[in-house]
Amino acid sequence: MDSKARSQTRLVTPKQGFKANDGSMAVIPWPTGSTKVFAVVGNPIDHSLSPVLLNAAFSTMELDAVYVALRVTRQGIGDAVLGIRSLGLAGVSVTMPHKESIIGQLDRVTDRAAILNSVNCVFWEDDNLVGDSTDGPALVASLEAELGESVVDKSVMVIGTGGAARAIVLALADAAVREVVVVGRREDAVARVVGLGSPVSRGGTIDEVREIEILVNATSVGMSGTVGEGHTPIPSELLGPRHFVYDIIYHPLMTPLMKDALASGARVANGIGMLVHQAARAFWIWTGQEPPLDAMFHAARSFDR
Amino acid sequence: MDSKARSQTRLVTPKQGFKANDGSMAVIPWPTGSTKVFAVVGNPIDHSLSPVLLNAAFSTMELDAVYVALRVTRQGIGDAVLGIRSLGLAGVSVTMPHKESIIGQLDRVTDRAAILNSVNCVFWEDDNLVGDSTDGPALVASLEAELGESVVDKSVMVIGTGGAARAIVLALADAAVREVVVVGRREDAVARVVGLGSPVSRGGTIDEVREIEILVNATSVGMSGTVGEGHTPIPSELLGPRHFVYDIIYHPLMTPLMKDALASGARVANGIGMLVHQAARAFWIWTGQEPPLDAMFHAARSFDR
Repeated sequence: MDSKARSQTRLVTPKQGFKANDGSMAVIPWPTGSTKVFAVVGNPIDHSLSPVLLNAAFSTMELDAVYVALRVTRQGIGDAVLGIRSLGLAGVSVTMPHKESIIGQLDRVTDRAAILNSVNCVFWEDDNLVGDSTDGPALVASLEAELGESVVDKSVMVIGTGGAARAIVLALADAAVREVVVVGRREDAVARVVGLGSPVSRGGTIDEVREIEILVNATSVGMSGTVGEGHTPIPSELLGPRHFVYDIIYHPLMTPLMKDALASGARVANGIGMLVHQAARAFWIWTGQEPPLDAMFHAARSFDR
Repeated sequence: MDSKARSQTRLVTPKQGFKANDGSMAVIPWPTGSTKVFAVVGNPIDHSLSPVLLNAAFSTMELDAVYVALRVTRQGIGDAVLGIRSLGLAGVSVTMPHKESIIGQLDRVTDRAAILNSVNCVFWEDDNLVGDSTDGPALVASLEAELGESVVDKSVMVIGTGGAARAIVLALADAAVREVVVVGRREDAVARVVGLGSPVSRGGTIDEVREIEILVNATSVGMSGTVGEGHTPIPSELLGPRHFVYDIIYHPLMTPLMKDALASGARVANGIGMLVHQAARAFWIWTGQEPPLDAMFHAARSFDR
């Protein structure tokens, strides 16, 4: 990111104590007129964890910045981007249903966002509004943190062919894994995802997981409130102690897949880490500072009940 | 205001304490995804006291709402209103240089705003964005609070012919004062202001203040950082113990006019009260609740140093 955007967010702490008339210490109401404003746009947006994660980060790093959630309908995204520009929002996260449709409203997107045709993080570069996609890098960062080692030269299976799977396969290939086996129901969809991970990616079948070290579930199978709730995308007998199973789902925090994996002796992780690392990457893009990951995880855990 | 907008802002408190892992009490980072967002638009906006006043009010009343300052250039106001609509801001304050130019972007303005051709508070009425002007009513409310009694049947002199003077004369006439004497340098400007206060208003000269009970300075004479800094709009020998002098200036908190008035035995008030009452009216329009004036005054005093 450019140094201008960075310096705009390197500001003093919002929490200036003062002595109230009765002698007690009080805190000046915040935000103030000089607080930088960030936002996430999407619909629905009420239950987004992003505000909690980013506000925890801003507060921990004593930046005078606030992050709010703004509900934008599908038809409203064009006007919303005019608003982001004219209202001077300092940075914006993008979620459903705008990740693709916002692209035409921006001045530029990163190569990664262009390849994926998806934007989830918008930042200023001089006077240009630029879109990036942080899903894949966030998955890799979270996966390596949970794994305790690099993914370089690892064999990975990715189940799914949607937007998340596409971002993940691209990022895994960038991270120099040995191979990415993509499993999905529709051959054409699998082929498109495989193309993103070239030359280390290929299509495969679920039973090949026996030869795999890392399994990533990038489908919604097992997610609360969906038709896949209570289900797992893989027969439990295929799982074993050699596996690390990363489920990008975080509702519930423990999916049927994760339970099966644990029972088989595998190690597991849920999608909270990917969520936190997405927010952390946005923080870094917007401020140029190292994100306070511990505080962000703490905020995620305390809120997600 | 309509009951729909009201119910949207009657929400739970943002400050939900929780026990952190180390056993200490912590606070969930705020705002969250469900926090309502209000804003003030203007340029410059960094030094606006409105965020401090409104956030103090929201916090005191335990409403999950946040108020931010957004810098909007003169040319940007059209796009900004598209943004206010599409981003779903819950209510907006308007300051320089947009008070007049925003009118054409709204669905409707109140009679008062139409007469004054000025809007400083925008609220939703069903799906319509409506503009109001709260300057005058805020002055009257503040004046009556400082005075300790109603302005009904009082004689008032207003110095100035700008936007503030216009709003004040209109509101004083609405509040049933006995007479409003308008003093200004340009006859045509005085006539236009007098027209707003009909039938109790008339043009006059500064020496008529001897027959007046309440003097309102609605000029910038005496304001820090202007050509009028250090000056007073009225010769000190005209002031006396019979006067209540209200200076709408609040930078500095004690103007030369106020010093002269105090020295003459008059009672005085500065513009902080008008500022707080403007914010209080916006709070009432947006939430339908009584504004917590004490907390707002406390916030204004603690911040304004």
